[in-house]
Amino acid sequence: MIELVSSTAEKSIKKRPSSVTILDVSPIVDCGRFAAKRFQGDDLIVSADILKPGHEMVAGNVVWRMCGEEQTWNPTPMNYSVKEDRWSAKIKLDHLGTLEFFVEAWNDEYSKVLQDVSRWLEHDEDVSSEVTTLLDLVNAAAQSASPIERSEIESSLRHIPQELSAQISPDQSKEIVQLLSAKPLSSLILKNSEKKDYTSTQVYTVIIDRAVVRYSTWYEMFVRSQGTAEKRSATFSEAEARLQEIKDLGFDVVYLPPIHPIGKTNRRGPNNAISLSPNDPGSPWAIGNELGGHDAVNPDLGSIKDFEAFVTRANSLGLEIALDLAFQVSPDHPYIRAHPEWFFHRSDGSIKFAENPPKRYFDIYPMNFEGESWESLWHELKRIVDFWISHGIKIFRVDNPHTKPVPFWQWLISSIRKEHPDVVFLAEAFTTPKAMKLLAKSGFDQSYTYFTWKNTKYELTEFLKEFFLTDVSEYYRPNLFTNTPDILSEFLQTSGRPGFKIREVLAATLSSSYGIYNGFELGENRPKAKGSEEYLTSEKYQYKVWDWDKEGNIKDYISKLNKIRRENEALHFNSTLRLLDCDSEQIMFYGKWTDDLSNVILVAVNLDPHHPQDGTVVVPTTDLGLHGSYDVKDLVTDQTFHWNGERNYVRLDPHFEPAHVLMLVRPQGAI
Amino acid sequence: MIELVSSTAEKSIKKRPSSVTILDVSPIVDCGRFAAKRFQGDDLIVSADILKPGHEMVAGNVVWRMCGEEQTWNPTPMNYSVKEDRWSAKIKLDHLGTLEFFVEAWNDEYSKVLQDVSRWLEHDEDVSSEVTTLLDLVNAAAQSASPIERSEIESSLRHIPQELSAQISPDQSKEIVQLLSAKPLSSLILKNSEKKDYTSTQVYTVIIDRAVVRYSTWYEMFVRSQGTAEKRSATFSEAEARLQEIKDLGFDVVYLPPIHPIGKTNRRGPNNAISLSPNDPGSPWAIGNELGGHDAVNPDLGSIKDFEAFVTRANSLGLEIALDLAFQVSPDHPYIRAHPEWFFHRSDGSIKFAENPPKRYFDIYPMNFEGESWESLWHELKRIVDFWISHGIKIFRVDNPHTKPVPFWQWLISSIRKEHPDVVFLAEAFTTPKAMKLLAKSGFDQSYTYFTWKNTKYELTEFLKEFFLTDVSEYYRPNLFTNTPDILSEFLQTSGRPGFKIREVLAATLSSSYGIYNGFELGENRPKAKGSEEYLTSEKYQYKVWDWDKEGNIKDYISKLNKIRRENEALHFNSTLRLLDCDSEQIMFYGKWTDDLSNVILVAVNLDPHHPQDGTVVVPTTDLGLHGSYDVKDLVTDQTFHWNGERNYVRLDPHFEPAHVLMLVRPQGAI
Repeated sequence: MIELVSSTAEKSIKKRPSSVTILDVSPIVDCGRFAAKRFQGDDLIVSADILKPGHEMVAGNVVWRMCGEEQTWNPTPMNYSVKEDRWSAKIKLDHLGTLEFFVEAWNDEYSKVLQDVSRWLEHDEDVSSEVTTLLDLVNAAAQSASPIERSEIESSLRHIPQELSAQISPDQSKEIVQLLSAKPLSSLILKNSEKKDYTSTQVYTVIIDRAVVRYSTWYEMFVRSQGTAEKRSATFSEAEARLQEIKDLGFDVVYLPPIHPIGKTNRRGPNNAISLSPNDPGSPWAIGNELGGHDAVNPDLGSIKDFEAFVTRANSLGLEIALDLAFQVSPDHPYIRAHPEWFFHRSDGSIKFAENPPKRYFDIYPMNFEGESWESLWHELKRIVDFWISHGIKIFRVDNPHTKPVPFWQWLISSIRKEHPDVVFLAEAFTTPKAMKLLAKSGFDQSYTYFTWKNTKYELTEFLKEFFLTDVSEYYRPNLFTNTPDILSEFLQTSGRPGFKIREVLAATLSSSYGIYNGFELGENRPKAKGSEEYLTSEKYQYKVWDWDKEGNIKDYISKLNKIRRENEALHFNSTLRLLDCDSEQIMFYGKWTDDLSNVILVAVNLDPHHPQDGTVVVPTTDLGLHGSYDVKDLVTDQTFHWNGERNYVRLDPHFEPAHVLMLVRPQGAI
Repeated sequence: MIELVSSTAEKSIKKRPSSVTILDVSPIVDCGRFAAKRFQGDDLIVSADILKPGHEMVAGNVVWRMCGEEQTWNPTPMNYSVKEDRWSAKIKLDHLGTLEFFVEAWNDEYSKVLQDVSRWLEHDEDVSSEVTTLLDLVNAAAQSASPIERSEIESSLRHIPQELSAQISPDQSKEIVQLLSAKPLSSLILKNSEKKDYTSTQVYTVIIDRAVVRYSTWYEMFVRSQGTAEKRSATFSEAEARLQEIKDLGFDVVYLPPIHPIGKTNRRGPNNAISLSPNDPGSPWAIGNELGGHDAVNPDLGSIKDFEAFVTRANSLGLEIALDLAFQVSPDHPYIRAHPEWFFHRSDGSIKFAENPPKRYFDIYPMNFEGESWESLWHELKRIVDFWISHGIKIFRVDNPHTKPVPFWQWLISSIRKEHPDVVFLAEAFTTPKAMKLLAKSGFDQSYTYFTWKNTKYELTEFLKEFFLTDVSEYYRPNLFTNTPDILSEFLQTSGRPGFKIREVLAATLSSSYGIYNGFELGENRPKAKGSEEYLTSEKYQYKVWDWDKEGNIKDYISKLNKIRRENEALHFNSTLRLLDCDSEQIMFYGKWTDDLSNVILVAVNLDPHHPQDGTVVVPTTDLGLHGSYDVKDLVTDQTFHWNGERNYVRLDPHFEPAHVLMLVRPQGAI
């Protein structure tokens, strides 16, 4: 639609602006500035308000194509929906990549005249003038049609006399209307009719990801801690031995912190102290030494061939490997000598450490994404991503993306997506919610969240409302990690085995994507110091050997929940989440169910890791089509409860089971 | 911000896109496609999210000017507000017209370096490198400054040695930081510093109206029915005699249905029957005959001089006259012969009546706003508006705007506004809510609503929520009419005198703008037929003489309410409305209060015109700063009630007073 702005209004009307208005197109993000996101196999429903003056009739299309190649545009006709003035069309998303679409609409004069004629005829009014108009429009459509369609139209109309008298009989008129109203002729005429008062919107984009972004279960581990020797690094070969167990626990993505050579200058030792021993392996996030940088493998872990073998073994088990992208360097990184222009310099010419006054990080140099050599730096970093893609990696967990410019991520991710639409980026940003959302808008497929710190019913509810239950879900896909190498939450430190089970069941059933960092399954809960969220003797800074069968571990619980996730389709989506009522402040009650109600999961979690809690939960029986009594089966304990109506009693002892994960079992013959 | 779209990403990065992102600018309507609306004298608060990577600091301006002349842009610095990442600036709206603004933001490197230096100094770190950077930035700012500002900066810095040694002392550094942090030097440097990573938004517009659009009280009357003679038209002179009473009733706008010559062809007689008597005056909306069209006065009412005298008399009483713009013609309108190209034609060449199958309106021809001669028609209609403006009219009530193209209204209203920013347009559109909203967006200053049909607490609540309490209020200003010549609601037909009082008190206290159509004050409630909303013997079709002192009239009630409106500032706004709780489904409870709480009005209305109702209302004591007991004074009855805490009892007998309009009387010394 051509806008008439006030200052130039009188002069500017050369062409009459369309009387048809298209408003409120959906799905769009920030007025179309960013792409909405969907998954391969989804139906994309595009909707818009289409408005026109008075009694005119309108028609509209969603016109779409996949980006990239010289694809032709496909028009899909929109249908009027139940909601006033709202039109929509459904597009099947078969391909990965980026789809672009716009909405077009026009004054459908032909349908209006046809409708008028029918209505006049019903009231025995003379329609000779209208029928003449109608046939003129049909002829015009035939003229615009392809030769084949034109002859179809003309042959359908062969019985209508060429020269209609002014006094066309009502019977003749009725016959013509009947003829014109029947398919396929009606569709043919509509398709070829003039799009009077045509208008269209800007082009919007939709990113189409593969399913792993919707439903994924992550396991984070340091390769170097996957062996049994105390004082040296484990290798890819040793780590391979753990893959079967991780698979058996029900995970499908194994995420590895950086696997590159580690800097030696100002290397950190155990518990992040200054290293005093030549045997300290250093933090893997201090990337690069004389043996190589972001495109090299730390020889302590093995060779690039060993890495490839590791990936191959994982893939053969149905596991994907995710790598870390940490765009920062140690003072020993090859970039420092080769490309000093990619870094920040002090006035004396020396390179600046990472700093956030009053702190300096002496083992890390940040990169200058906004310096004069930004372009060569950006391309080099893309080369790094391409390098690992060429070695079989399709998932990247990005370290601290919020400290780099958003346009860099927009450029990097869209460039990669162009050639590799199956590659996935997870944003590890803990910053303001708006900045986290902006990163998701800029292209990240999954994002970390504040879940780790949400423990009370109020906190969880507010968090879920904001990130799961609003339009934020058009672009933000939360991946709920229970813990990370940097975050051992206070709750986990103090809540014992029941607390670990509580956080596990919340993450696994609230979100279709979640993850744990190894040690969680063992109940590892010792902080570096009181008030710290750092792990004691964190493997970030030292060699570590884990006892994978440590007493009190919750591996059975995790594998059971991951099996429940796999087997229940409702848990593969976040759009299915419904927060439900329970009268206890200690009990979270929520459900997920498929649209067809064939799979209904109800979850009640006691958030108190210390005491049994009870309460009355409210089952949305109307929404679920339930009448009277029904059974719910706890998929963890296999117990079945006979419930009745909306209100039902639950009691949850955290020392037995802190949660019910209930599957609705309908009475015979229902639905 | 320059977007990197996927398809052209790799090639397109020539200039590095800004790392600063501006999002979610407010107030805007439909992504800036339409203007937000404010009033002269308001403070316009412009807000935006400004996001940047990592620890960088940003700054931003709202840059604005009045449209029309070659005005310079004014930058107003934005301040960081309480809400995360949100910045805002306040602009005083002194002038009528259209304001345009955009938001600009940049990386404030200077403030960041200054902050870093301060923080390092607090921890006794060496800052010689940072101070050098800082002084370089100051010098660069001085270079960009105007000669006067430059010498100010330089003279402020005269004590700083020109050649700083590498080992600048901590004391020297502290002195420099102190010097640079003090105003006015700090502001001068900031103002002239490089706007690194500059970004800006599109230009948005805000329409600034005069106050009558916010707070107005309308009275609709047919001039021809304002006399005492049964069989002839009253004149402007006779109507003048009624203006004092209308003023005394507390109205400030008198709206007249069309005052133009009326068509004779197919003229309608009493009760919209076909006219059989040459004395029938016809519907004033069938505009035009051989004596003239839209720019003529019906001689039965008087001359254009009489009209001017009427307007002058009204203005002298503080009343404004609103005219009707009904862009349609009778078959006798001069346009028909002079400009047949402005109309719709049947295939036989005859002009088409207004129709909506199966109905035809034989006394009306619609105009073809979308025909080939649209441009000359549009300009002619603008000439009509200009004509009446030149005769002292500043308010137009527009008949059925939804049957004409939206771009026509955008063009007409913005063209008129350019020359006459004090002119006001009221949209009489009863169509889908979305279409009504679109007309408001397209420029109408006030709009009719569905209020007439909202009677139950649920209906009223949903209506108010949608049109008063959401972002819709950025552009939609409801004018609540209790009745119109076309709408005698079923409620008014059946509810007696109490019903008229209920509708009056709702309209007068819910909305800062409302109106009545004459007869309402007299309790006129006879429908043309059962199930019809048309008045019996409607003055639309015949001469009518009203008894302005008819028994049972509610004139005292209306004048009292209009006086209450005038005297209580909280009722001059809609943004002040708060829906409050009452446990009775029959009692609506709501409040309006000024920001400073100096004027607090609480209204309880019994929606049941037949029976007394009682209930407990919930006063938001916390919001109102109330503790313990307080008095509320009923401004209608002058009764004072002693209330205590949140919950208070009300009982409302519709046969006595259906509503309490309560003013909060604070205990001595409170607030």
